[in-house]
Amino acid sequence: MNPGKKKRILIVGGVAGGASCATRARRLCENCDIVLFERGPHVSFANCGLPYFVGDVIQSEAKLLVATPQLFRERFNIDVRTETEVVAINRETRMIEVRDLRSGEVDFEHYDALVLATGATPIRPSLPGIDLPGIHVVRTIPDSRKLKAAVSNAGSAVMVGGGFIGLEMAENLAGLGLKVTVLELANQVLPPLDPEMAFYVAERLQTCGVQLRLGEAVEAFTAKEGGGLSLQTSRGSAIESDLVILGIGVRPEVSLARKCSLELGERGGIRVDEFLHTSDPNIWAVGDVVEVKNRITGEWQLMPLAGPANRQGRIAASHIIYGFRCKAGQDAPPPLTFDGILGTAVCEVFGLTVATTGVSEKALRRAGIEDFQAVFLHPGHHVSYFPGAKPIHMKLLFSVRDGRILGAQAIGEADVARRIDVIATAMMQDATVYDLEEFELCYAPQFGAAKDPVNMAGMIASNVLRGDLALANWNDISNTDALILDVRSPAEFDAGYMPDALNIPLETLRERLAELPVDREILLVCGVGQRAYYAARTLKQAGFQVSILSGGMQTYRTFVKSTDVAG
Amino acid sequence: MNPGKKKRILIVGGVAGGASCATRARRLCENCDIVLFERGPHVSFANCGLPYFVGDVIQSEAKLLVATPQLFRERFNIDVRTETEVVAINRETRMIEVRDLRSGEVDFEHYDALVLATGATPIRPSLPGIDLPGIHVVRTIPDSRKLKAAVSNAGSAVMVGGGFIGLEMAENLAGLGLKVTVLELANQVLPPLDPEMAFYVAERLQTCGVQLRLGEAVEAFTAKEGGGLSLQTSRGSAIESDLVILGIGVRPEVSLARKCSLELGERGGIRVDEFLHTSDPNIWAVGDVVEVKNRITGEWQLMPLAGPANRQGRIAASHIIYGFRCKAGQDAPPPLTFDGILGTAVCEVFGLTVATTGVSEKALRRAGIEDFQAVFLHPGHHVSYFPGAKPIHMKLLFSVRDGRILGAQAIGEADVARRIDVIATAMMQDATVYDLEEFELCYAPQFGAAKDPVNMAGMIASNVLRGDLALANWNDISNTDALILDVRSPAEFDAGYMPDALNIPLETLRERLAELPVDREILLVCGVGQRAYYAARTLKQAGFQVSILSGGMQTYRTFVKSTDVAG
Repeated sequence: MNPGKKKRILIVGGVAGGASCATRARRLCENCDIVLFERGPHVSFANCGLPYFVGDVIQSEAKLLVATPQLFRERFNIDVRTETEVVAINRETRMIEVRDLRSGEVDFEHYDALVLATGATPIRPSLPGIDLPGIHVVRTIPDSRKLKAAVSNAGSAVMVGGGFIGLEMAENLAGLGLKVTVLELANQVLPPLDPEMAFYVAERLQTCGVQLRLGEAVEAFTAKEGGGLSLQTSRGSAIESDLVILGIGVRPEVSLARKCSLELGERGGIRVDEFLHTSDPNIWAVGDVVEVKNRITGEWQLMPLAGPANRQGRIAASHIIYGFRCKAGQDAPPPLTFDGILGTAVCEVFGLTVATTGVSEKALRRAGIEDFQAVFLHPGHHVSYFPGAKPIHMKLLFSVRDGRILGAQAIGEADVARRIDVIATAMMQDATVYDLEEFELCYAPQFGAAKDPVNMAGMIASNVLRGDLALANWNDISNTDALILDVRSPAEFDAGYMPDALNIPLETLRERLAELPVDREILLVCGVGQRAYYAARTLKQAGFQVSILSGGMQTYRTFVKSTDVAG
Repeated sequence: MNPGKKKRILIVGGVAGGASCATRARRLCENCDIVLFERGPHVSFANCGLPYFVGDVIQSEAKLLVATPQLFRERFNIDVRTETEVVAINRETRMIEVRDLRSGEVDFEHYDALVLATGATPIRPSLPGIDLPGIHVVRTIPDSRKLKAAVSNAGSAVMVGGGFIGLEMAENLAGLGLKVTVLELANQVLPPLDPEMAFYVAERLQTCGVQLRLGEAVEAFTAKEGGGLSLQTSRGSAIESDLVILGIGVRPEVSLARKCSLELGERGGIRVDEFLHTSDPNIWAVGDVVEVKNRITGEWQLMPLAGPANRQGRIAASHIIYGFRCKAGQDAPPPLTFDGILGTAVCEVFGLTVATTGVSEKALRRAGIEDFQAVFLHPGHHVSYFPGAKPIHMKLLFSVRDGRILGAQAIGEADVARRIDVIATAMMQDATVYDLEEFELCYAPQFGAAKDPVNMAGMIASNVLRGDLALANWNDISNTDALILDVRSPAEFDAGYMPDALNIPLETLRERLAELPVDREILLVCGVGQRAYYAARTLKQAGFQVSILSGGMQTYRTFVKSTDVAG
């Protein structure tokens, strides 16, 4: 760059995306002025740790401060200004108006590149009583400090919203001894999952003493005499509670962007290109404030996740410096790009790990994608002969056109994130289910199986695509004309079976083919799907019309029960 | 297929590859005769579980039997003949000669397709005393039963060989209270790893009371009066021990293949193509008996691993049935292929997980591959602000030509297999280190970091390839002319530093540039490599010649100490 003139990079917002952008910019350009403005008192704090700070799992507030303004100054020569709000942007003069929130003083700063990392704010629906004391959010350290103080005098809490943060909060509050109720408008917890998968989590919450109220919304809050709140719900109930936490999502903080007429997307976030460049050539935006393109559906989405925010910060920084170098006529390596989002996420709820990547079945349908199939499986997290194997409940969604992986969900007590990470990696590389079959993964008895759960998922899906196996659709099960054939042992069958199911154990099937109808579709079911698959191969080759109920009775249970809850 | 004539598939060997092949063949062909011959008393047993059976972690022998002959017959209509040895193959007549090991009776069987899954046998070097009682191997259930009985009367054991199985055995025997010595010819344990990585394991073994003797071979065994053995070693020592276990590897069981002149490879295994087809059009071979092509080096190797054996069984079956269908003029989906091996492996040693995929640095050099670099890093398995973070020591090897990933090794107490699985998946998809940077993996505070260890490894390597960062070579460190600049705090420096290192903390570096030489190379070092990287960016942009010592003092320690041991 022109050594005579220092470039100025101003960054608005100092948590994940903003902080990453600032430090990356410094590494690429020793010679730029970099200033980070943060409205709150802290930069680079551990947002994702807040529920655990409230729950005393993370005991010291200082631990939440990943980097301090002092560290930014000393290590990176970055000027950090906390409790300083950027109140306006003049795009023509490339000036921002800055207010010191302590003194009220206003100042102006010039930029060559401006990065908006203003994040998102918790949604507070405009309901009667919403501003009463005792209604909390968990977004910042001050929020959490306030909640933590309130919790120490509380015996009960209502968590409004059953998403990832809602359930993390529920677990932490229950861990502190509070009686916790989760109120969720949808008929399931964890909206990124499909309902029959979310069912496992709902079941665990209830087992662990959390009251779960699905399909129910809060409509008003009133203060109780002598303290505490009463919540009126859409089902006409009143729930009494010492405190309430709102966890119904966040909204991108676009007021600054809107005021200076940057282009926004239809979801209300800032619209950026693959370099995180906004509609203004001198302004970039990163993190929770931007809309991102879904890698699978191609739809624009709001997806507030820490990993992508960090990568976006890096990418914006590299693009900014690339631009400076190009303008100065210098050599510049090609900039990085942000190629969209899978939506990989993980959460722990009372010992259950829930992880997902890609798109759920319901989201595929919402996006108008219909040419897919779903397989369910319930493998152990390691071989059954080694003590302590725990099941992983998995759902894999794939395109029937080309075998492309569209999404995966997994729930279990061990090694769940590992399997979703492998599938997410495969999806990043545009792998198909045929590739999943072949992956050479870590195996020793305590770590997996010679056919890893991921291989198994790939094998089942590939069998479908090769025509070796047809899948029945669980959603059609309540009004099927097909014969349901259960190939488990009589003892297993007697312990519970699907209505009108016929029982012929796999071991005797070859001798009993004459009992089966040749002109009626047969749906095969067993415990988890394996024996049904073996039976399907035998029957198909004998000329019967067969398909299997993927995941077996294990999956049947979740379809029946999650529908019960929803109904 | 021609319904008038049943095809006969004979399979020799009934453990991983053979059993997989048999059941897959049945699923594809209800109408074939499938016979599985097994010399031993069991089919489909859990070979990988044997050390844990000896160690009483797996308490019941029955657990090791993944599938019984009865199950093969009832579920799959497969005829299993245990304690039956195939003693000869007549390729012209397509007949095998079979001996019942109980009765001694000999019979002949015709095949349309023959699959050799004869496995491998433990190497027993022809040393004086090798056949003395008290010298054991651990390959079959009877082997293990014998060893288990011997262990119950033993106070000490020598494990000859420090590979994966040797260390698993050492841990299990120590767990039973035996005094265990591991004798290893090489200067490191776990030969698939590089020595500085294997060092962590050696250290852990010693901490846990295992006597480790590296660079030392056994030369003779003698029986002691009153019981027990004495081992004479290459260093002139005598080690006394109640029992000895040989774990120095296995040799493919090719006697049958050799007798009928099937083509063997230079490593002594059966040579097969991507369909597991041997040099005879009617014979296939799978599992530990075949040579496999390394995906990275292209070299033929012996690589006895359960996962690939199972996949090979599946692939051979699909190719056999494909051939039958083609000959019968029927439609047939294209057969699967086996595209070589990465060598992904994992092992637990006294609470440390060791995992690897791809090729080590020394194996790359042996294969004549020199245009690569190695990065070292030591990230926590999850964010440090969440309690319980454990370091993962990682080494990533990548091509400097195109960024292709060549191998990775990781060691730590938690979530190690997960990271290696992700990298193995990336390698299966021919990903580069640029891809690793961008992977969108599971993150919540207890599960990782917004920049996952895998992302970090990719970022460091990509920084190298983009020219943002130069790496010094640890192997040259003992005779470098460069200035070693340590950018840690004075307190950290005082606790231990490299010879002749200069200490300038990162925080004061920008003000002290005048102290540094402009005409001499500077090697930067810190705790784990991160601050050195920051310093490198500052110094490089100020015109200095800098490179970093990847992995910092954490890695330095392992280079010094593993060389000590080797010396």
